[in-house]
Amino acid sequence: MSAQNKADDSGGCILWFTGLSGAGKSTLSTVVADYLQENGAKVELLDGDEIRTHLSAGLTFSKADRDINVRRIGYVARLLARNGVIAITAAISPYKDVRDEIRATAEREGTPFIEIHVNCDIDTLAARDVKGLYKKALAGEIQHFTGVSDPYEPPTKPEISVDSGRQSREESITIIKEYLAERVIAKKTA
Amino acid sequence: MSAQNKADDSGGCILWFTGLSGAGKSTLSTVVADYLQENGAKVELLDGDEIRTHLSAGLTFSKADRDINVRRIGYVARLLARNGVIAITAAISPYKDVRDEIRATAEREGTPFIEIHVNCDIDTLAARDVKGLYKKALAGEIQHFTGVSDPYEPPTKPEISVDSGRQSREESITIIKEYLAERVIAKKTA
Repeated sequence: MSAQNKADDSGGCILWFTGLSGAGKSTLSTVVADYLQENGAKVELLDGDEIRTHLSAGLTFSKADRDINVRRIGYVARLLARNGVIAITAAISPYKDVRDEIRATAEREGTPFIEIHVNCDIDTLAARDVKGLYKKALAGEIQHFTGVSDPYEPPTKPEISVDSGRQSREESITIIKEYLAERVIAKKTA
Repeated sequence: MSAQNKADDSGGCILWFTGLSGAGKSTLSTVVADYLQENGAKVELLDGDEIRTHLSAGLTFSKADRDINVRRIGYVARLLARNGVIAITAAISPYKDVRDEIRATAEREGTPFIEIHVNCDIDTLAARDVKGLYKKALAGEIQHFTGVSDPYEPPTKPEISVDSGRQSREESITIIKEYLAERVIAKKTA
């Protein structure tokens, strides 16, 4: 059934948040999900932690297992998006090649892939350290901690880029909303 | 966002095929998917093999791993169905408690769960043996083979029941279509 593998024309897309732990992916993606729902979109937020629970329990944080986890998120996001849903993902997704692979597959199916880089310098993250993880990672108590003992490969051409180390939350939200108002919401209601 | 966790009112549901390997789940579910698409529904077919590839590579066929696999299928089906998609699953899904757990979660979200038992007696399956698996399983060469060396717990109250050992494919399809025409398609176009 080829029809199943093509996006319908009802405005589904993937909003792919990527960035270090604590940079603000969950907070921003939740605000964005509410905003899009208020504007009449069907939205599903695939949070990194939720996906680990439902789809990837047992996987480690090795590169191989992270890649599997991120591909699973991509698979589910594509299923939703090609049925008219705005699928929002908010996992660290540290490796550029896997993100680009998901983008390529989605775009081949006619699904727009909007990458949102939530940047934040490591000093700010370590100082903020909401979950106390950076302290442990910097002390060597957590292995495979992205940005400390594991690589993070930032997007080279993200559709949207915000910096929670330099901007207020409101500033970051405004940047994202402005893009979405023009490219996503306007398209849905056109 | 509570709105995310409630089904919208656009006719999404879960069609959950269950039955032994070779009973006809894939064949019937593919015909049903085409039929529903031709009638204007958004459809995603989550085939057992496809899901193993995309969501459950590495899992074994132990009870614990089968349960994880089936729960993952249920999770994705629920995400789709609550956004107006008819999510069709076609995995063996041998254990009643896990199927019932997914049904309960779906129904709590307002998503109809339609269980379709594809019955077939083991003698017919062994004689048919399309993939040559029953011969190997009966010879003890495959462990955890449902219906031979692993249990299959049939649904006690499936919404639809067909028997590919006693009915022609056309008869089974007619039974399923009649149910869906009345309960799913009519509802979507009401």
